[in-house]
Amino acid sequence: MSRNTSGWGVVEIPVVSVKNGSGPTILFTGGVHGDEYEGQIAVSRLSRGLDPAKVQGRVIMIPALNIPAVMNDTRLSPVDNRDMNRCFPGNPRGTFSEMLAHFVDAVLLPLVDVSVDLHTAGHSGDSALSTNMHYVADAKLRERTMAAAAAFGAPYNVVFWGVDEGATLTSSVERRGILSLGTELGGWGRVNVEGVRIADRALTNILRHFGLMEGQPDTSQRDGSPGTRHMMVRDAAGYSFAPAGGLFEPRNVVGDLCRAGDLAGYLHFVEDIDRAPLDVRYRRDGVLWMSAGPGRVQRGDAVAVLMEDYDALRAAA
Amino acid sequence: MSRNTSGWGVVEIPVVSVKNGSGPTILFTGGVHGDEYEGQIAVSRLSRGLDPAKVQGRVIMIPALNIPAVMNDTRLSPVDNRDMNRCFPGNPRGTFSEMLAHFVDAVLLPLVDVSVDLHTAGHSGDSALSTNMHYVADAKLRERTMAAAAAFGAPYNVVFWGVDEGATLTSSVERRGILSLGTELGGWGRVNVEGVRIADRALTNILRHFGLMEGQPDTSQRDGSPGTRHMMVRDAAGYSFAPAGGLFEPRNVVGDLCRAGDLAGYLHFVEDIDRAPLDVRYRRDGVLWMSAGPGRVQRGDAVAVLMEDYDALRAAA
Amino acid sequence: MSRNTSGWGVVEIPVVSVKNGSGPTILFTGGVHGDEYEGQIAVSRLSRGLDPAKVQGRVIMIPALNIPAVMNDTRLSPVDNRDMNRCFPGNPRGTFSEMLAHFVDAVLLPLVDVSVDLHTAGHSGDSALSTNMHYVADAKLRERTMAAAAAFGAPYNVVFWGVDEGATLTSSVERRGILSLGTELGGWGRVNVEGVRIADRALTNILRHFGLMEGQPDTSQRDGSPGTRHMMVRDAAGYSFAPAGGLFEPRNVVGDLCRAGDLAGYLHFVEDIDRAPLDVRYRRDGVLWMSAGPGRVQRGDAVAVLMEDYDALRAAA
Amino acid sequence: MSRNTSGWGVVEIPVVSVKNGSGPTILFTGGVHGDEYEGQIAVSRLSRGLDPAKVQGRVIMIPALNIPAVMNDTRLSPVDNRDMNRCFPGNPRGTFSEMLAHFVDAVLLPLVDVSVDLHTAGHSGDSALSTNMHYVADAKLRERTMAAAAAFGAPYNVVFWGVDEGATLTSSVERRGILSLGTELGGWGRVNVEGVRIADRALTNILRHFGLMEGQPDTSQRDGSPGTRHMMVRDAAGYSFAPAGGLFEPRNVVGDLCRAGDLAGYLHFVEDIDRAPLDVRYRRDGVLWMSAGPGRVQRGDAVAVLMEDYDALRAAA
Amino acid sequence: MSRNTSGWGVVEIPVVSVKNGSGPTILFTGGVHGDEYEGQIAVSRLSRGLDPAKVQGRVIMIPALNIPAVMNDTRLSPVDNRDMNRCFPGNPRGTFSEMLAHFVDAVLLPLVDVSVDLHTAGHSGDSALSTNMHYVADAKLRERTMAAAAAFGAPYNVVFWGVDEGATLTSSVERRGILSLGTELGGWGRVNVEGVRIADRALTNILRHFGLMEGQPDTSQRDGSPGTRHMMVRDAAGYSFAPAGGLFEPRNVVGDLCRAGDLAGYLHFVEDIDRAPLDVRYRRDGVLWMSAGPGRVQRGDAVAVLMEDYDALRAAA
Amino acid sequence: MSRNTSGWGVVEIPVVSVKNGSGPTILFTGGVHGDEYEGQIAVSRLSRGLDPAKVQGRVIMIPALNIPAVMNDTRLSPVDNRDMNRCFPGNPRGTFSEMLAHFVDAVLLPLVDVSVDLHTAGHSGDSALSTNMHYVADAKLRERTMAAAAAFGAPYNVVFWGVDEGATLTSSVERRGILSLGTELGGWGRVNVEGVRIADRALTNILRHFGLMEGQPDTSQRDGSPGTRHMMVRDAAGYSFAPAGGLFEPRNVVGDLCRAGDLAGYLHFVEDIDRAPLDVRYRRDGVLWMSAGPGRVQRGDAVAVLMEDYDALRAAA
Repeated sequence: MSRNTSGWGVVEIPVVSVKNGSGPTILFTGGVHGDEYEGQIAVSRLSRGLDPAKVQGRVIMIPALNIPAVMNDTRLSPVDNRDMNRCFPGNPRGTFSEMLAHFVDAVLLPLVDVSVDLHTAGHSGDSALSTNMHYVADAKLRERTMAAAAAFGAPYNVVFWGVDEGATLTSSVERRGILSLGTELGGWGRVNVEGVRIADRALTNILRHFGLMEGQPDTSQRDGSPGTRHMMVRDAAGYSFAPAGGLFEPRNVVGDLCRAGDLAGYLHFVEDIDRAPLDVRYRRDGVLWMSAGPGRVQRGDAVAVLMEDYDALRAAA
Repeated sequence: MSRNTSGWGVVEIPVVSVKNGSGPTILFTGGVHGDEYEGQIAVSRLSRGLDPAKVQGRVIMIPALNIPAVMNDTRLSPVDNRDMNRCFPGNPRGTFSEMLAHFVDAVLLPLVDVSVDLHTAGHSGDSALSTNMHYVADAKLRERTMAAAAAFGAPYNVVFWGVDEGATLTSSVERRGILSLGTELGGWGRVNVEGVRIADRALTNILRHFGLMEGQPDTSQRDGSPGTRHMMVRDAAGYSFAPAGGLFEPRNVVGDLCRAGDLAGYLHFVEDIDRAPLDVRYRRDGVLWMSAGPGRVQRGDAVAVLMEDYDALRAAA
Repeated sequence: MSRNTSGWGVVEIPVVSVKNGSGPTILFTGGVHGDEYEGQIAVSRLSRGLDPAKVQGRVIMIPALNIPAVMNDTRLSPVDNRDMNRCFPGNPRGTFSEMLAHFVDAVLLPLVDVSVDLHTAGHSGDSALSTNMHYVADAKLRERTMAAAAAFGAPYNVVFWGVDEGATLTSSVERRGILSLGTELGGWGRVNVEGVRIADRALTNILRHFGLMEGQPDTSQRDGSPGTRHMMVRDAAGYSFAPAGGLFEPRNVVGDLCRAGDLAGYLHFVEDIDRAPLDVRYRRDGVLWMSAGPGRVQRGDAVAVLMEDYDALRAAA
Repeated sequence: MSRNTSGWGVVEIPVVSVKNGSGPTILFTGGVHGDEYEGQIAVSRLSRGLDPAKVQGRVIMIPALNIPAVMNDTRLSPVDNRDMNRCFPGNPRGTFSEMLAHFVDAVLLPLVDVSVDLHTAGHSGDSALSTNMHYVADAKLRERTMAAAAAFGAPYNVVFWGVDEGATLTSSVERRGILSLGTELGGWGRVNVEGVRIADRALTNILRHFGLMEGQPDTSQRDGSPGTRHMMVRDAAGYSFAPAGGLFEPRNVVGDLCRAGDLAGYLHFVEDIDRAPLDVRYRRDGVLWMSAGPGRVQRGDAVAVLMEDYDALRAAA
Repeated sequence: MSRNTSGWGVVEIPVVSVKNGSGPTILFTGGVHGDEYEGQIAVSRLSRGLDPAKVQGRVIMIPALNIPAVMNDTRLSPVDNRDMNRCFPGNPRGTFSEMLAHFVDAVLLPLVDVSVDLHTAGHSGDSALSTNMHYVADAKLRERTMAAAAAFGAPYNVVFWGVDEGATLTSSVERRGILSLGTELGGWGRVNVEGVRIADRALTNILRHFGLMEGQPDTSQRDGSPGTRHMMVRDAAGYSFAPAGGLFEPRNVVGDLCRAGDLAGYLHFVEDIDRAPLDVRYRRDGVLWMSAGPGRVQRGDAVAVLMEDYDALRAAA
Repeated sequence: MSRNTSGWGVVEIPVVSVKNGSGPTILFTGGVHGDEYEGQIAVSRLSRGLDPAKVQGRVIMIPALNIPAVMNDTRLSPVDNRDMNRCFPGNPRGTFSEMLAHFVDAVLLPLVDVSVDLHTAGHSGDSALSTNMHYVADAKLRERTMAAAAAFGAPYNVVFWGVDEGATLTSSVERRGILSLGTELGGWGRVNVEGVRIADRALTNILRHFGLMEGQPDTSQRDGSPGTRHMMVRDAAGYSFAPAGGLFEPRNVVGDLCRAGDLAGYLHFVEDIDRAPLDVRYRRDGVLWMSAGPGRVQRGDAVAVLMEDYDALRAAA
């Protein structure tokens, strides 16, 4: 990558691969978005502390995949102003983010059996601590992914019904038939202390679940519930959007139970005391998965995403 | 203020003044920093809903004082890249932030008996919901300020011992002998739902406390405690700073009880897998008042501020 | 579209479609360039006021197609720094401007019989109020387009002989055999009062001409001329360019009759009093269609474009 | 002035001084704002062509006073983001604009008898071609200034009643008791062809009026009126401001006669088809002196300034 | 190319072609990177002074190929933030740098027999004055290229073994089987006086070597050596990289003989007096070809590149 | 200092003070300009390695005084876009650079007997390795300063006759009657290997010269000359400036002997092949002290500064 003051340098992205004995290959990635920290911390810690002697298989750990964005502390890459997670499968002659996506898709993924890509809501909002996955057509792969999510041990696992833009890392993983798990482990641009605790435990849980390490996953929940709660985001009615630019005041935090028609919040116009705030409402019942981010929003920004219970939905379908 | 496309325009800052009967003048300000939302919301709501017939005295409400920063959603003003709260007493021929500070200091403050300036931690971190004040030399004014803080009704009130840079709004207010109360009602760049609830209630509480409205302040606390807990930040030992640039992982959230020597968190270098994280520790016992902000920090950024019980400290002194 | 503070939002582009009875589909677009206002105003006004009961056919109205550029008040999109009108036919996996162009080309155009895309000279200069079109190879389509231009009723209609970069909206429209009309209704970055009047009238004129509304087009001209004057821009000799960077002083305004060899203006070097201004001259006779924009120009900027009478040129050919 | 790549350079500002025989000193300045071109052109042309043998007195000509802004083609200086015409009397240790203002105030003005500072509306709007002046307290100086304005020969001369921010070049000139004349000779970011013609003629007119050159001023007007029409801007009611951010559609051009209560224009919200445009109205009768600039405005931008007849106002007073 | 203030302009890139009699076509290019000056100067001087009567063949001279970067004084283009020399073979519908690369590849190169593209180290470092070339597979072309390099007459000629990213101008030239020579004639962002002398002489030398001009190349060396010394960069072990971000203090200048294990320099952390500098060492013996650039480096920046003697290496292979 | 993401942080500037026994206080400062590296390296190295037991007196060492500029690698501070060395004596309520200057002037300087402030030409050009000083009025102080410069041991010492802007660190030092020595130890944005060698040796030399360390200064010169050569820059005729913006090709490097009327270099217009280069000439005889920086210059940039022999000048005076 050329900068104005460096034409001959290289961008070093730390990749730690631990291999021992036989077993599957698991890829842990953090930092696809630079301002999502919990995965960077957990993958970095594992990569410094994992004892190869205790591994059966291969663990590829990339704590800070999109290193220009990580060092810049932003969702988008400062090099090309692109969202790396909208650049897959990438392009070896494209911009830097496209080249990086291509490297992952064409070089790394062919080696991989299971991909766990750790995200948070970044500066876009907060998230209930959760894994997420698509409702993939292959029922067996879907069951295996739900089992992996349960082993991961976050409070929630969110299944998306058919939402895939085709340009995410997940879409590249799925096109290759690899088991794919994502996460949302915090947001608001801060490091979520509980999100890091879940992530640290989860990486070991996943290695145990797939037999790369000995032992059983620890999936106990702080609220005493028996384990991960499987949820679903069915369609666009789960989302509430800002109807205009302004200052959004939410009325709930993630994990709250919300009802259709309830106030999601108010959109204020503090610069114009004569303009009344607008009501923003929920469009269905559900548990708040993603909350609002910075107070000041633009028209069309998502300010709430609701999730519903998976089993109830599946039973009703 | 001149822009490149507007030489003859004006910057309109909404100021709502409600006056009825006789009584003191109270100034409520929000938006001194553009990314601190709870005060903007509460002052805006009060200014749209306050019934003049029920007021005895004058209430001056400015929901979005630093309007260029408010509309830009940043702490600093986009006009001159200055922190307005480091520009007091201002300068009528200076930059825009200096002119604005001068207007507050020279035009508004002479009218005012009580100033309540609503802040949060913005994007710098999170804060335990609190009012704050200086340990002013005048014992009577100090007692009156503590009583006002108790009437405000936040979970905590933080007294600073002698920390004043002399360029804050607070310093201008104090130079004029006016009762001055500040707040920290959230942070992490989000709108704190509980912070807004406290702020909404508090503005009415203050009007009641000073006799501008009828009724008693409601200062009940969610945790059942009897009222606001008075705390103190004595000196620099309450602060922990990032010892280098990196990714800071905190171990506590605001309100946690912390011990001297405990880990405040780790400073990670995820871009350099060979460099061990650094430990950052607390330097005294206390309750966490201000927590870390964005994960990525620069050397010298405050990542934790502890507060101690006021009475215990006062007793020991 | 991802921003650094919004990963899950949507960009909402207002599209108003009015359909009633049977009849052709007409597409009115404004805001392909964000700083071209007359079309945004006229299409917005029509979309708010058009009575479906009075329409036979379908009218698709998009007042602000390139909404990021419109809200940013610039020709180029702030998202990817691209000129949307150089991005056709677009790319569903490209940058935002390319995705938007793809949406127009692949989703909207297949529905459309007539496209009227309203432009001005933006900040690049001023324009004589005019429609414009290509000298398309299909004589029947060319005649129909000239008739539509006459019904539009601007003072001038400019026919380009074979100038098409292949990446404009017009080129996409023409590739599909759809009747395509463009406009230049002002410039200098201001809202041209007369340009808005022409545009408001023209949209109704077009609906009448194609039978979607009752009544006859009103094509009367303020100067008493019988109707739209058909003109032509033949080739590069109609253009005068700045020969260097400097401050350009034009000698004519749009609509002026100019002669080959006459002074188009002077290029001044006010920073260097010892450097004589350069003469810039017209290279053929004609009426000034596009004038200079901001005084300060870069080498190669077009500072004048002349148009010639269509009939005389056609007779001579 | 230090740049990042030049610590030892100088900023060269062309100053041409022509002195011969005895007579007063006249200062002609252009380019105080970088995007106001007509004065730059006229002063530059005069400074290249003035024959010293034909001068009695001294003519100091500065075509591009604020050279960093001139070369950057902006109102504000790119060096310090300041409006030079809000920096007087300047500061020798301040920012670059402040140093430049100080140089004019402290070095040049003590030499000067008459100051003519040539402005336009820049990118802020368009202006009726005019000189302008303050209603200075000294009646004799006021009469002399009005006579100078009449000799300048623009269509209008606008007298301001008491509007002076104290930080303009004009205010520095007036503090020294020097005769001060300003101009508005165009705008919309373009070079006004007629504005340049007026300016070229006016500089010679002024030299003749004050006896530095032989001959009589030529003050004939294109519309056959006998000479410059003296007008007045009394107070804030002559201004109309944008009540919100949006796209402003004006209904008049400069020179139009307007009535109190008439529509100055509409403020459109093209991004939100459901939000009705706002009416903006004139607040008194008058002739439109300054019109709107770029279509997209911010709240508080001036979109119209009306002027009234000086004699009628004076008679009524 | 569209700018926000110019939609209809053109970018003029000076191309001077001198043709006379019969003979091969030679392309001289400077300014592919805007901050590499020696080639711009030498090609510009030749293009102003070359006498067509003395030429047999065709000389195409482009002093400032990437004109937006040249005028911006940067390696990358300010238009699209791309390194033009990573955009080949280009794309006629891509960004501006891609379009420019396409023009060179598709329009110019088919005319060309020999391409000499003049580079320096720009702001990335300094270079020993040298030509460079790839170890192309075709032995005859390789010999012809080495002979051309010897005729060019720089102190060194560097042969790369198989380093080609496929997106450089060189790669486009080689794909067409054209003789390709590059240069490194200075750096540190300054104009190298000796580098210009070498370049001026070399352009004539090349014309003589290929028979376009009469006379023999002058390849004398200042140090008395018999001619150009052929060197090789074999693989990545010749490079030393910055192991972290910091301030790099080199210990050698270009042309120095260095030994494996010797200190290439220290990486200082002046902001953290407690952090010891890091040693950076050479990884093989060689002559320093490229030295460090600006003191402040990012992790992965090349701070030293060593070259070895071509004949010794070839003999050993 | 507030950032948008840090309101409560501190800026840590490393200051190392070593004190032992009795003796004067010497202040060594580096990094007043962020892109001047040699002083940063030498002061940092000394501050890490100085043995207090071997010191008599006090040594205050600040390797990176203007830390925001140092970390940003620029001459100007990224915080306020100011040149810190034009901000003295500073202002405790001003911008960050002004506050920093105030700290040095008001807090540090009262402690200091000798100030050595290490500079280079940064990116503005290259410099002959030298100390520099003013021709201070006090003859005894002047003699002591020249003796200190001789002990420093650079090849040249340059005495300025009366050039002081009054806003430099030097001016603050001199106002207090403290012995002041500056340096120019390289430039072109690179780390000068020989400049670092001189600086490392010089800091010890100065400590020895003033009796803080034992031993004699080592002032031997690589060219065999007996010691530092005292030079003078008398007035503006020693400077050559760029007469226009363009690409400057110098003909000499620092240390060259130049003659009045000789070519300092050519100013090229590579973007306009028809415009002949301009000659830039020396205006007096002298040795080249400061050479040109980046090839692309703006009008008024210094491209050469000549120095003359001190003794000859003094004798002639």
